[in-house]
Amino acid sequence: MAATLSTADEGFEAAFAAFLETKREASQEVDDIVREIIARVRREGDAALAGYTQRFDRFDVTAAGMRVTRAEIEAAYGACSPETLDALRLAHERIRTHHARQLPQDAQYTDPIGVELGWRWTAVSTVGLYVPGGMASYPSSVLMNAVPAKVAGVERVVMVVPAPDGRLNPLVLVAADIAGVDEIFRIGGAQAVAALAYGTETVPAVDKIVGPGNAYVAAAKRQVFGRVGIDMIAGPSEVLVVADRDNDPGWIAADLLAQAEHDTAAQSILMTEDADFAHAVVEAVERQLRQLSRADIASASWRDFGAVILVGSLDEAPSLIDRIAPEHLELATVRADDLLPKIRNAGAVFLGRHTPEAIGDYVGGSNHVLPTARSARFSSGLSVLDFVKRMSTLRLGPEQLRALGPAAIALAAAEGLEAHGRSVSIRLNM
Amino acid sequence: MAATLSTADEGFEAAFAAFLETKREASQEVDDIVREIIARVRREGDAALAGYTQRFDRFDVTAAGMRVTRAEIEAAYGACSPETLDALRLAHERIRTHHARQLPQDAQYTDPIGVELGWRWTAVSTVGLYVPGGMASYPSSVLMNAVPAKVAGVERVVMVVPAPDGRLNPLVLVAADIAGVDEIFRIGGAQAVAALAYGTETVPAVDKIVGPGNAYVAAAKRQVFGRVGIDMIAGPSEVLVVADRDNDPGWIAADLLAQAEHDTAAQSILMTEDADFAHAVVEAVERQLRQLSRADIASASWRDFGAVILVGSLDEAPSLIDRIAPEHLELATVRADDLLPKIRNAGAVFLGRHTPEAIGDYVGGSNHVLPTARSARFSSGLSVLDFVKRMSTLRLGPEQLRALGPAAIALAAAEGLEAHGRSVSIRLNM
Repeated sequence: MAATLSTADEGFEAAFAAFLETKREASQEVDDIVREIIARVRREGDAALAGYTQRFDRFDVTAAGMRVTRAEIEAAYGACSPETLDALRLAHERIRTHHARQLPQDAQYTDPIGVELGWRWTAVSTVGLYVPGGMASYPSSVLMNAVPAKVAGVERVVMVVPAPDGRLNPLVLVAADIAGVDEIFRIGGAQAVAALAYGTETVPAVDKIVGPGNAYVAAAKRQVFGRVGIDMIAGPSEVLVVADRDNDPGWIAADLLAQAEHDTAAQSILMTEDADFAHAVVEAVERQLRQLSRADIASASWRDFGAVILVGSLDEAPSLIDRIAPEHLELATVRADDLLPKIRNAGAVFLGRHTPEAIGDYVGGSNHVLPTARSARFSSGLSVLDFVKRMSTLRLGPEQLRALGPAAIALAAAEGLEAHGRSVSIRLNM
Repeated sequence: MAATLSTADEGFEAAFAAFLETKREASQEVDDIVREIIARVRREGDAALAGYTQRFDRFDVTAAGMRVTRAEIEAAYGACSPETLDALRLAHERIRTHHARQLPQDAQYTDPIGVELGWRWTAVSTVGLYVPGGMASYPSSVLMNAVPAKVAGVERVVMVVPAPDGRLNPLVLVAADIAGVDEIFRIGGAQAVAALAYGTETVPAVDKIVGPGNAYVAAAKRQVFGRVGIDMIAGPSEVLVVADRDNDPGWIAADLLAQAEHDTAAQSILMTEDADFAHAVVEAVERQLRQLSRADIASASWRDFGAVILVGSLDEAPSLIDRIAPEHLELATVRADDLLPKIRNAGAVFLGRHTPEAIGDYVGGSNHVLPTARSARFSSGLSVLDFVKRMSTLRLGPEQLRALGPAAIALAAAEGLEAHGRSVSIRLNM
């Protein structure tokens, strides 16, 4: 049974502050193991990958061929239902179209004294995409990570995916192919991250690694950061549903459970002004839970991390939302348009009664890789911007150097950087 | 004496690959010390800050007052020469004007089937700015970090700066005031980073921490990452000067030394097609070195990490530049405009013979916080984008949900996420 907090209670502020500090992940001591795996992959290359794959995924990757072949990808298409293929293609097209709007513009201008300033965006050359194996091997995540890279203009997207007992999810292969992934390797874990960061005989070294993974993958990404770029480290998923009393409690309960079924550490929060409505939602959650195939996971998540927050009025919602900074925010209320401009911290916002968060997971078009664990306070969902970088450009002529040079020389002198000043003064015959 | 590599040599590829792998920083074992400092600041708050400040900066910060007062800032203005103040104000205005062009646009559109998509950018609420003390306490860096935050709309910029023996650099205080920094605390080191991440009785908890620092500060930023956002971890500075033979060797030598004087681990590289010109530059470096106040630092940097790369023609330059991915790139050649579009990896590019990199450090207007250690392959210089984040928005009505819902249900089923599908089907009476 989820916890209930009410802003009307005297102890609300303390309880809410404690709620915000709740840790939903056990910290695992994996750093040393991962350090050893990375060192061995750097030292031994493909042989290390073969050894770890035998140990962790229980098959001979050298015999299977590290790289997934075109024939395997074609066969994967055959293993998918036409309905699922159509859905994947629809999702791909919607994601591609939406992300194409995110391409940033170059700039070039001349200021009033004739200095030319500007910037140029260029794509990262080579990107590695980590895709988890087993239960969390989601074709939708392949699309969400690969499409923005391809839209950005990344030339080479290299995917790694573990194949437990040698088996790969055909939908994942098909999603990768639809998204334009250039190469797929059947390796996973920290060893795959190490291979992408440093390269082996078979696996190319990349410039940036993105994609979700378990604690070992996350630790490996942290350790290779700097050598290559990485995306954010994803925590367990979460949703905050702000709902007025005019909603069908069953719809809202379904949304809470869609989040809870992800992971026992997932979090579903209902915020409403009506205690009776909250009660009806909680009852609907209990009822729907009984019918779910993943009831064990969803009920553990709801019991341990679920919460109901009662507010006196939805006017109180924006400041509480900003403190929670949820990954997903549903505004299932007629006041959605009134509340939205007052909110600043959320990964993605789903407006109105007919936009369940699951639409955004698959076919909305926006990205489902979003900041978790309150990091929407300072970061954004995955986008084309994660696969491009900006070079600034500056050009002065002799006249501009005469105009700005003395100020640069003065500041260099104030900072004790004489040679900085000299690189200007030598050009001004000073 | 700097190393020389020539693309005409048979061993060039191996030598260049080794050159790219050269580590310029000794890794320091500071993680455990920093972990203890952070834990103690979380536990004891201001008292821990007072203890560490007494130990590392040798003064009683409680007696001095943790927060720098308005009167102290006013007094700092009095301690600066009018010429330096004018230079700071010019730099501020140019940086502000340039960064104002980086403000990203919100988007809102309706797709052909009536789905409303968009995104809204909002500023990070509270930002912590770390400013080093002592020799590396640069007022220009205060401007470069604080101005983009203020242009982005950050409401509260909180600066920390260590005061060795209780002393602060007046120029740093003045730069902060000009840039609009809201509060300044005279604390530094890992303890200041911990205070910004977790808050104490006096220091507010922030959402993101930016700014350069020593190995302890860098380790602390890595450890609090996730709790708060951080900027990139800056390594030693570097410049690559691409120069044709028509340059004055003295000018190019001055540019190489402006980089070398930063730090013994800084790196200055000359790339040219003319061995005689390269020789003349190297001679000019030796000659100018004798006159520099920071000759010890600059000569160690030039000796240990300086390099001359001889190419057969500047046509070879772009691919080598992209592999070096320099923080600063000077194109001191008439072919600058021809080369620029072929280059993708560089932090900032300085075009032509009259744009020494030092102009960009102070008064060009673009940012001088740039990706080091080859990270321009995947990251960009500091900008307004580092202080904003994007919320995506999505709205469907009943008709759009009927159009897209079945595909979402199909993908949810394929991924084994039944409750995801139910949150859609329950709204479609399916």
